[in-house]
This record gives sequence, structure tokens and C-alpha cells, in this order.
Amino acid sequence: MVTVISVIGGSEIDEDTEKKAIEIGRLLARNKLAVSCGGLYGVMEAVCKGAKEEGGLTIGIIPYKEKSAANQYVDIAIPVPFSQGRNVIVVLSGDVVVAIAGKAGTLSEISFAWIYGKPIVALTGVEGWSSKIAGQKLDDRRTDLIHGAKTPKEVVDKVLELLKSKKPKGYSFDEK
Amino acid sequence: MVTVISVIGGSEIDEDTEKKAIEIGRLLARNKLAVSCGGLYGVMEAVCKGAKEEGGLTIGIIPYKEKSAANQYVDIAIPVPFSQGRNVIVVLSGDVVVAIAGKAGTLSEISFAWIYGKPIVALTGVEGWSSKIAGQKLDDRRTDLIHGAKTPKEVVDKVLELLKSKKPKGYSFDEK
Amino acid sequence: MVTVISVIGGSEIDEDTEKKAIEIGRLLARNKLAVSCGGLYGVMEAVCKGAKEEGGLTIGIIPYKEKSAANQYVDIAIPVPFSQGRNVIVVLSGDVVVAIAGKAGTLSEISFAWIYGKPIVALTGVEGWSSKIAGQKLDDRRTDLIHGAKTPKEVVDKVLELLKSKKPKGYSFDEK
Amino acid sequence: MVTVISVIGGSEIDEDTEKKAIEIGRLLARNKLAVSCGGLYGVMEAVCKGAKEEGGLTIGIIPYKEKSAANQYVDIAIPVPFSQGRNVIVVLSGDVVVAIAGKAGTLSEISFAWIYGKPIVALTGVEGWSSKIAGQKLDDRRTDLIHGAKTPKEVVDKVLELLKSKKPKGYSFDEK
Repeated sequence: MVTVISVIGGSEIDEDTEKKAIEIGRLLARNKLAVSCGGLYGVMEAVCKGAKEEGGLTIGIIPYKEKSAANQYVDIAIPVPFSQGRNVIVVLSGDVVVAIAGKAGTLSEISFAWIYGKPIVALTGVEGWSSKIAGQKLDDRRTDLIHGAKTPKEVVDKVLELLKSKKPKGYSFDEK
Repeated sequence: MVTVISVIGGSEIDEDTEKKAIEIGRLLARNKLAVSCGGLYGVMEAVCKGAKEEGGLTIGIIPYKEKSAANQYVDIAIPVPFSQGRNVIVVLSGDVVVAIAGKAGTLSEISFAWIYGKPIVALTGVEGWSSKIAGQKLDDRRTDLIHGAKTPKEVVDKVLELLKSKKPKGYSFDEK
Repeated sequence: MVTVISVIGGSEIDEDTEKKAIEIGRLLARNKLAVSCGGLYGVMEAVCKGAKEEGGLTIGIIPYKEKSAANQYVDIAIPVPFSQGRNVIVVLSGDVVVAIAGKAGTLSEISFAWIYGKPIVALTGVEGWSSKIAGQKLDDRRTDLIHGAKTPKEVVDKVLELLKSKKPKGYSFDEK
Repeated sequence: MVTVISVIGGSEIDEDTEKKAIEIGRLLARNKLAVSCGGLYGVMEAVCKGAKEEGGLTIGIIPYKEKSAANQYVDIAIPVPFSQGRNVIVVLSGDVVVAIAGKAGTLSEISFAWIYGKPIVALTGVEGWSSKIAGQKLDDRRTDLIHGAKTPKEVVDKVLELLKSKKPKGYSFDEK
């Protein structure tokens, strides 16, 4: 099975955040990690763009019926026309969750990651919930923290570290 | 159409929070407001219990297939076996949302209320997200705040104030 | 807990089917059975109209975010903005399912009723799937049949018979 | 974007149906078409097995939270823990739908394919709904038929014909 990293974050982002999201996409793909996201714009488009620059595999869990609603860098569009219910699927599709900026939709996904026990790496130094929530506990029953990371490289290094206990597998479909 | 107040909050609560949730249920029912909630335990059971003490109408949006999973104070069980996706429905079923304590699941519902433009009244002075989040903006595009309220009476007074612009209607099914 | 009958059927119906759906709504309400449906038009509106004529309780599981999308005879609107995923909830909200005419959406609900073990009473003598499917087995693992019924009275008599083993309770919210 | 064929069908199948499902998986992969399915057993496992024998790409839309619930031939597991609501996603993930045998769950997916305007190719000569429904209209508003096909080769030939108007693209992730 392909190891997938869910990337969550704002659909409207500033240029600095966009650059960082693209770089995170590149680094994930270089490490043979597939990217899953909400399939639309802002962080979602940037991370897919970066991943495709490095020949990565991108999955877009879009909240519409039509696959054509996905951004142009999505390889596999999964339509989940369930309004914010689609956020559940974005989170569950990943083995680790990366949060980049984001508003209320991203906060709901952070909440779900916590509930489902998905480790979260949150980019700090950008506007939005990924910064505000880094280092916090979301639930007193759990001792885990959301892991803050200051740069794209730190984010992906932390992802790789978190995956170690999970035996990630790179994807490859033409090896036969 | 019946005016419905969604009540969200923790499934594991202390005695003080339980008393307050019961009292909120009573006050909502006395004001002819139906109560919707997740249909299970903790805040959900307490608010339904209070509502039934005053002859109220209670709706339980449960995350299981079997209606029998609802707590004993639920009149109408709506099974939504969509894991955390059911939280979307809990929020949308209400005209106003009341938050009482709560952990990550409640935080996801607070996020959805914000996204869908549902006003939130958050009980303060209890443990959990309703206290932590009161008075905060969840999204910079919106100017609205989550309204904090210190007592059950303050909570319901605020709910009634928020409903004024919405022309709430009491429910009554046997008027014919 | 209130006993609820899910009524499924076409959103575009002829006059004869409409009359029968209204009559079924009336008979369900007279028997103190609440009605759940998709909350929109055609069979859904007709059965709610009939139920309200007799002071019944009507629940509309609508596939939109806004409660105002429900037809005017819906007391409790439950927004489930999950496209056809909402059909799952329509079926699960009932203790027995009544099918009246209907196209592909109704057929999906008939399938779900079968999967979830909900007994189905299907009106015959009208166009659409309720007639075509009556008396058939949907799944070879189950021995149950979909029960065909020729008139509104026969439909509701069959519903009452099917409920006997379930100890239905009438609803009443103002008894205190 | 990758062209994806949704394959729907029974989770319990006889040996003949299994062989045909494996062959359909092989033929789809040989034509560079990715396969999407419910990710579990029976037809779902057989079609993934066949696809992987030919180096194909397989997507499993599983109705559980844990990706590990997918069968061993699934490359990308998308958890959709929404009970039968997951069937909506199975259908929407494909550009064309192939039906192989199947019981009530498959019938719900056939209904959804119709509603969403996805062309269906149904294998005949096997037990279950794919045979029973082939050549039927599911909805009188539409003139389209479900296309019956007698052999795996006929199924995939029909799929390719249906895709022509859609400009299918093969998938390839390592071309850079």
C-alpha cells in the first residue's frame, strides 16, 4: 500500500505560505510519499504543484461531484460531495497529517486527526491555525502534542521520523 | 417549522457541568425550543434529561445505525453512521449552537458552526473547549465572536436574543 | 422514543400518486406515527401535507445545508448535505419504510432498507420502483420480501402489523 | 488526471465470477486504466488482484477508518467510514462504472451511477444484479441503458468505447 501524507490548510494563502507549501510538496514527493489533500486551491494546489514538479502522486478529496473541480495538479480525484463531511476523509486518507496555515475548515481537520490518532506536523511562522495550535493538546485524554515545525524541511523531517514506526512504503506502479 | 437548538459538548463530564447542562435543557424546553444533540452521553444525555423534565422535544443525531443507541431521553433518533461526519449534521440541525465543555469532537463542531454561519453560545467556567474558545474569532474573514456565557440562564438568554432576528417558532403538533 | 415511518418515493409524481401519498400521510398521523422523508417535493411533500392535516409530526432529511429548503409541511428539518448519501439517513430514521412510486433515488433507498433490515411496504398500482420491486427479494441471503400493498389503507395496515413486534410508541411532547 | 474505472460487485462470489473479475482487472490495467472499488473482498479483491498482476493502479474506498482493512491488492486506501454512504464515493471516483454480479449494495451503486450520469457496463451471465439489470432503464427521465456485456473482453471493450468521448488519459507518475 502506498504511504500517503494528508496536507491540510487554507484555501486563501499569502505568497510566503504558498512557497512553503510548494516546497513541502516537493520534499514529500522526493521522499516517495504520496500527497492527499482537499483537491482545491491555496495550500491544496500549492502542495500538489510541488509534488508534481518532483514526479509525485497526488490525491484530491474534493467536496464536489465532478472530478473536474479538482486543481490541475491532482492525479486522482475522489469526489466526496458531503460538504464539510469530506474533511473526515481528507484526514483518514493520510498516515500522517501536515497542517499549513488554515482557518475553521483546517481546525476541524486538526480535530479529526486528533480523534483518529493521526500524528500532526504543524507549520509555524505562518498565519492561521497551524501556528496557533502547534504544541497544544487538543484533548486531555491524550498526551500527544501537535508537532510544530518551522520550515518545510523540518516539517518533512518530522513526517519521516513519525513514519518510522509505521514502516512506510514508497509507491511504484510499473515495477512488474 | 420547529426552532431547534443544537447542544454540543463532552461525552465525559464532571458533576458541575452535568448540572449546568441539565439546567440548560430545562430552560430551552421552557422556552419551547427543541433540543438537538449527538444523542449519546455526558452533555448530550444531560441536556436531553433536562429538556424532558420540562416536556421538551429532543432529537439525537447518533453516529450509529441502531436507533436504540440513543440515550433514554431522546424522542427522535436520527442515525447518522458516518463517524465524525455526523458532527456536521448535529450543527446544521440547529438554528443556534450551544457549546458546553467538550474535547476534540466539540471543537470540530465549533469549527463547523463557524463555517456554516451558526451563532454559538459557549458556556464558560467549565473545563474544555467551550471555555477556551469563548470570545475568540475562529476565522479572520468573519467578524463574529463566539458568545461566552457564565450560567445556564445567561446561555439561554443569549440564545433567545440571537433567535430574535430569526423569528423562532415554538413547536406544537396537536393544535389541529 | 417516537416511532417513525420513513416514506420514500418520487419527487415528480402524477395526481393519482399524490392523492395516495397524502392519504398515507393522514393515516400514519391518525395512528400517531411520525413521518420521516427526504423533505422535498412530490411524494415527500404529499405525505407531509397529509400528516399535518391530521396533526402529525414530520421530519425532513434534506440534502441541503439550509433548513429553509424543506417543504412547508416539515416540522423538523435535518440538513444532510451529503448528496445521495442523505438517502442512507432517510432509511435509517424509520422503523418501517414505505415506498411510493420513485425512480433511481428511491431504488437506492429500497436497497439500503434491505441492507439495514428495515421492513418495506411498497405501494403497487403506481408508476415507478415501488410497483416494480414489490414482492421481490433484493438479496438472496435474506428470505424477506418487500411487501406490496394496493391502497393507502393496505399500506398503513401492513405498517401497523410490521410494527407489532417492535412495540411502537406514539409521540406526545406536551403531556407533562 | 488519471482515468479511473469504478468496479462494483458482490463481496461473496462463486469461482467463475471471480475468474472473470480478475480478468477484467487485468484488461483494465493493460489499457492503463486505474481501478477503483470498495476495497474489500469478492469482486473487489479479484479485480484489484488482476490489475496488480498487470502493474495497474488500484484504489480502495473502504467503509472503515483503518486503511489496513483494505484487501492486499489495494495501492491507495481511502477510508470512508460512512456505512453505505461510502457507495456514493465508489461510484463518483470512476469515469465509467463496471458492475459484476452483486446484491443490494451493488444495486444501490447502480442507482447512484444512474443518478450521477456515469455510464454502466454490466457483466451478464453471472448471478446477481449486474445480470438482472442489464439492458434496463433505471429512470424514465433518461434514455440511456445499462450496457450488458457477456465476457471480460466485451466489458473492457465497451468501457474503452464509452471513454472515447471523454478523452481518457493513462496514468504515469514517474515520467519526469
